[in-house]
Amino acid sequence: MAAINAANEGHALAYGEDAHTKACEQAFNELFDAEVITRLMFNGTGANVAALGTLMASIPGPNHAIVCTDWSHINNDETAAPERVLSTKLMDVPTTDGKLTPDQIKEVADWRGQVHHPQPALVSITQPTELGTLYSIDQVVAICHTAHELDMLVHMDGARIGNATASLGGSRETLRAFTIDAGLDAISFGGTKNGCIGAEAVVFLNPEAAVGSQFVQKQVTQLPSKQRYIAAQLNALLAEDLWIALGQQSNAMAQQLHTAVKDLPGIEAGQPPAVNSIYPMLPPEVIVPLQEWSFFWDWDPSKHQVRWMSAWDTSGDDVAAFVAGLRSLL
Amino acid sequence: MAAINAANEGHALAYGEDAHTKACEQAFNELFDAEVITRLMFNGTGANVAALGTLMASIPGPNHAIVCTDWSHINNDETAAPERVLSTKLMDVPTTDGKLTPDQIKEVADWRGQVHHPQPALVSITQPTELGTLYSIDQVVAICHTAHELDMLVHMDGARIGNATASLGGSRETLRAFTIDAGLDAISFGGTKNGCIGAEAVVFLNPEAAVGSQFVQKQVTQLPSKQRYIAAQLNALLAEDLWIALGQQSNAMAQQLHTAVKDLPGIEAGQPPAVNSIYPMLPPEVIVPLQEWSFFWDWDPSKHQVRWMSAWDTSGDDVAAFVAGLRSLL
Amino acid sequence: MAAINAANEGHALAYGEDAHTKACEQAFNELFDAEVITRLMFNGTGANVAALGTLMASIPGPNHAIVCTDWSHINNDETAAPERVLSTKLMDVPTTDGKLTPDQIKEVADWRGQVHHPQPALVSITQPTELGTLYSIDQVVAICHTAHELDMLVHMDGARIGNATASLGGSRETLRAFTIDAGLDAISFGGTKNGCIGAEAVVFLNPEAAVGSQFVQKQVTQLPSKQRYIAAQLNALLAEDLWIALGQQSNAMAQQLHTAVKDLPGIEAGQPPAVNSIYPMLPPEVIVPLQEWSFFWDWDPSKHQVRWMSAWDTSGDDVAAFVAGLRSLL
Amino acid sequence: MAAINAANEGHALAYGEDAHTKACEQAFNELFDAEVITRLMFNGTGANVAALGTLMASIPGPNHAIVCTDWSHINNDETAAPERVLSTKLMDVPTTDGKLTPDQIKEVADWRGQVHHPQPALVSITQPTELGTLYSIDQVVAICHTAHELDMLVHMDGARIGNATASLGGSRETLRAFTIDAGLDAISFGGTKNGCIGAEAVVFLNPEAAVGSQFVQKQVTQLPSKQRYIAAQLNALLAEDLWIALGQQSNAMAQQLHTAVKDLPGIEAGQPPAVNSIYPMLPPEVIVPLQEWSFFWDWDPSKHQVRWMSAWDTSGDDVAAFVAGLRSLL
Repeated sequence: MAAINAANEGHALAYGEDAHTKACEQAFNELFDAEVITRLMFNGTGANVAALGTLMASIPGPNHAIVCTDWSHINNDETAAPERVLSTKLMDVPTTDGKLTPDQIKEVADWRGQVHHPQPALVSITQPTELGTLYSIDQVVAICHTAHELDMLVHMDGARIGNATASLGGSRETLRAFTIDAGLDAISFGGTKNGCIGAEAVVFLNPEAAVGSQFVQKQVTQLPSKQRYIAAQLNALLAEDLWIALGQQSNAMAQQLHTAVKDLPGIEAGQPPAVNSIYPMLPPEVIVPLQEWSFFWDWDPSKHQVRWMSAWDTSGDDVAAFVAGLRSLL
Repeated sequence: MAAINAANEGHALAYGEDAHTKACEQAFNELFDAEVITRLMFNGTGANVAALGTLMASIPGPNHAIVCTDWSHINNDETAAPERVLSTKLMDVPTTDGKLTPDQIKEVADWRGQVHHPQPALVSITQPTELGTLYSIDQVVAICHTAHELDMLVHMDGARIGNATASLGGSRETLRAFTIDAGLDAISFGGTKNGCIGAEAVVFLNPEAAVGSQFVQKQVTQLPSKQRYIAAQLNALLAEDLWIALGQQSNAMAQQLHTAVKDLPGIEAGQPPAVNSIYPMLPPEVIVPLQEWSFFWDWDPSKHQVRWMSAWDTSGDDVAAFVAGLRSLL
Repeated sequence: MAAINAANEGHALAYGEDAHTKACEQAFNELFDAEVITRLMFNGTGANVAALGTLMASIPGPNHAIVCTDWSHINNDETAAPERVLSTKLMDVPTTDGKLTPDQIKEVADWRGQVHHPQPALVSITQPTELGTLYSIDQVVAICHTAHELDMLVHMDGARIGNATASLGGSRETLRAFTIDAGLDAISFGGTKNGCIGAEAVVFLNPEAAVGSQFVQKQVTQLPSKQRYIAAQLNALLAEDLWIALGQQSNAMAQQLHTAVKDLPGIEAGQPPAVNSIYPMLPPEVIVPLQEWSFFWDWDPSKHQVRWMSAWDTSGDDVAAFVAGLRSLL
Repeated sequence: MAAINAANEGHALAYGEDAHTKACEQAFNELFDAEVITRLMFNGTGANVAALGTLMASIPGPNHAIVCTDWSHINNDETAAPERVLSTKLMDVPTTDGKLTPDQIKEVADWRGQVHHPQPALVSITQPTELGTLYSIDQVVAICHTAHELDMLVHMDGARIGNATASLGGSRETLRAFTIDAGLDAISFGGTKNGCIGAEAVVFLNPEAAVGSQFVQKQVTQLPSKQRYIAAQLNALLAEDLWIALGQQSNAMAQQLHTAVKDLPGIEAGQPPAVNSIYPMLPPEVIVPLQEWSFFWDWDPSKHQVRWMSAWDTSGDDVAAFVAGLRSLL
């Protein structure tokens, strides 16, 4: 908020020609230690659609299909915005852990060049995944390598990139290892789920894949006129690696919650969290009362499994209060 | 061909205002024993896209998603034409036999009304399926019943409708039982795979779901100017139920082929055909030489499984010659 | 800014289920004195695309074309976002003053029902227009009447709605007279050009034309997760009719500027402003130096005509300083 | 018809791998005296959409807008199929004679590189135009030159290409002069309006602009399975330059009609035809009776102007009979 208030002072040119936006672009250059192309957007769905649309348009030929997992946010949680706006197919491959493998990419790519079949040319992965799992650095490297050998480009949906970075090493070098150094072409770098009011960046790590990115951004309705307010939020998030610290905090809170509940009677806490979510199975009768008191999503109702997620601003007191509430219902 | 030559005589008004087209519309009314709305099209992909696009447009609201199987022709064999032209999502559900179930429709429909999830409003099934299986009459009835209870519409891809009708009873009453009487809203009635040069009809069995169908047909590039040539082909196919007879013939030839090869050494012929395809596993070394001599598609290379399909003009001599060729390679 | 800071306090449910958003919906109900349907969005292009997409989807049939003027923002200044996202045609009709007439609507509507021609079903007008002109209340009434007689819906792009309302009467009754009482179906109610950081509302004055509006909003990437920050901006704008006061202020400043320059040597100031822009012709040699000192857009370079626009925060001192700068160059 | 009957003999591989299709591709190579890329399609709208979609996809970047005239077939007579299928904008510029000029292209191109404006990258012209006028060879050369200097590609809608070629010189060299030698990138070469049952070819004269053309063709539903029947029609049309002879014949008949009516009382015959249409003004009372007897289209009802068009099979007797009918009504 303080960052936005500061951005509010003085007049500024519209559409990104201002000091805050330029500082933000510079901040991403420094973050990735490269001359990347940064586009600031309103929300996660828009960032993903603009990123994928730009990558599609950088490859000549027909509307290229996009390979993703059956659990991916673009497939399940964006009301078919990618298909509507980009007029292309998402080829969702089945997974049990939300992670795509190089072999799956190869298998789908078998259809390339066959005129009757969808033509995959992009791969989109989510880090951390929608199931709370993580690709290792090596796994991202392998995916990029396989995709590029097949002349396909790779996008990462990084709505919770701070959690992934915190868990895999906690430094800028960590981030670079599983993104730009791994060969990723573009990333949706999330701010909204990391404390921002509404701020996302699409960062094209491969500038050749960013042809016309600002035009695509405008066409998909994601070009803000007063970019400085979005830039200011991201500048605050990037300063002193706040985004990593916030990821560490929410990861730690999920860990703390897991520890606190794993020995409670009637609860199967499941695996310790890789990032900031756990998926416990609860006694059926406590779920609704608990949700009414403090809302969370069902996960697999057939197993009375729910998803508990910590956020950037979850505190140890919050966890303690929640566990106390849970205990009172058991 | 004779039908087309007859249609070639005399001038005629363009775009369907001619005697052949009117006769064709009447022939479909008689076939379904109802006042249906018939639109004549060039090819199967176009017919499916126009049918689905019209059904989509008859329901107010956002771009509606389409439920189909992971094996469906619209999902795999149309190069993402439905997604490109209709800008919507195909929600492909996994099957082992190519057949969708009412429970799967219910499960997908759980997302209806939830703003973040794709909004399925259409169901598309293929009869016979892409795996050579058949929905029973009761199964189609159950699918339509489930879909309609959920306010969804049902389309059938009937590219090989003659084979299905022949196998399920062989009469016009058979066809009606698993289409209009079952509650189907629209069918792509195939001619091209049943001996036509290039002729498909989309028949809207539910006229309320056909709002603006001719406009959609034009927008998706499937409105022929000289419809009489397409009408003439379909008129010939419908006359004296030729389409059923051709379906019976190709079904019989697939059966004959299955019988002829099922005891050959090194061959696992698989299930007897429900319609006009069998999926044998062959000794690996014979596949390529056999394909070079008489082309057919691989099915599952990991199991040396291929697909053999009879056509409307396959004769007993063709089958005998093919079996002889196969024997010579064993 | 203060409004946003207030919205920042305390937790809130995502996607509009919060007190600020509910207050905003109520504020629009009061503004229009009716139960309207309000959707909060990020930017003007997105608001227009979501509004038009929802109206399109409320009418069964093929992709409906949209009638607008050749000067309209949707036609010229949105990089073809409407065509890309909605996959439909803008039928832009020529105007000299940026205003559509009922006769032009009737003429375009002649094509309705003819299968080979684009099918217009929506009308979109801008108030005030892109040329700084205004539709009178009667003119909007006549447009809506004509459109509705032809079964077409009417959208208003109200990016500068405060300026129009200020000029036409300056009260809530004024607004109602040329919107809901005139029969308008939906309006893009602009906040960003009226002092907001980034806040637009699409208000469906005709609830029957809003079927699925929230789903369309999500599909076109305009559904904010943290709506309270957008709601807070609009709530501040609507409170005590601040939006009208800001419109009055910028209109007055344009008037003041016009008065100050109309007798300067070498300047043809043109018509007094209807709202907040004037289109003077300047001595050619002063244009570039003046733009370098204080940026404005060229309008018609062949006539050395430029556009000067006042904003919600333009003060009398700003005008005086600008005129002094201009004088120094003459 | 004889050509199609010949194509009907013997089996053939589907989707263009047959002798007729190969012969057709070779025939177009010879026609243009170059290695062109030929794609066979069903109808004119489909050919235009597939051609433009392929050209769009050969240029990296956002959805590229298409420059055409306000009279163009793609703009007025295809029910917005280009916008629907290609999700892009047609930028229609006003003309009085249906002909685009290099200056108009330059003017529209001023918006290139400006992020808020539509981005034109293709030019589409019609030869002969929808108004019965012709571009001279030099005019096509100038258009291609201007477009290419601006990095734009040029498409020609040649639905009546035989008439244009007949009028401009009547030889293959004539055709080459205003197409491949002029620098045209692709042409929709019409068969259906030149006697075919239904056959169009998109010929990419610039092979670099044809990237993925067959995939685009499939995606827009225009890939025929039994191409040999389309190829056979075009082969017959191209053999011994029949298409030019048919163009000459219909041009001559329009000329004959013009001569026969130009001195009739009450008729203003207008300009002699450049190709195969004349636009006379008739006494108002004869129009409807004449249309009921032999249908033709109104052109400008306010002036009692109609369009009379000769076709590939119009004979001198047809013209004489029509003139006799007209005389009887005067």
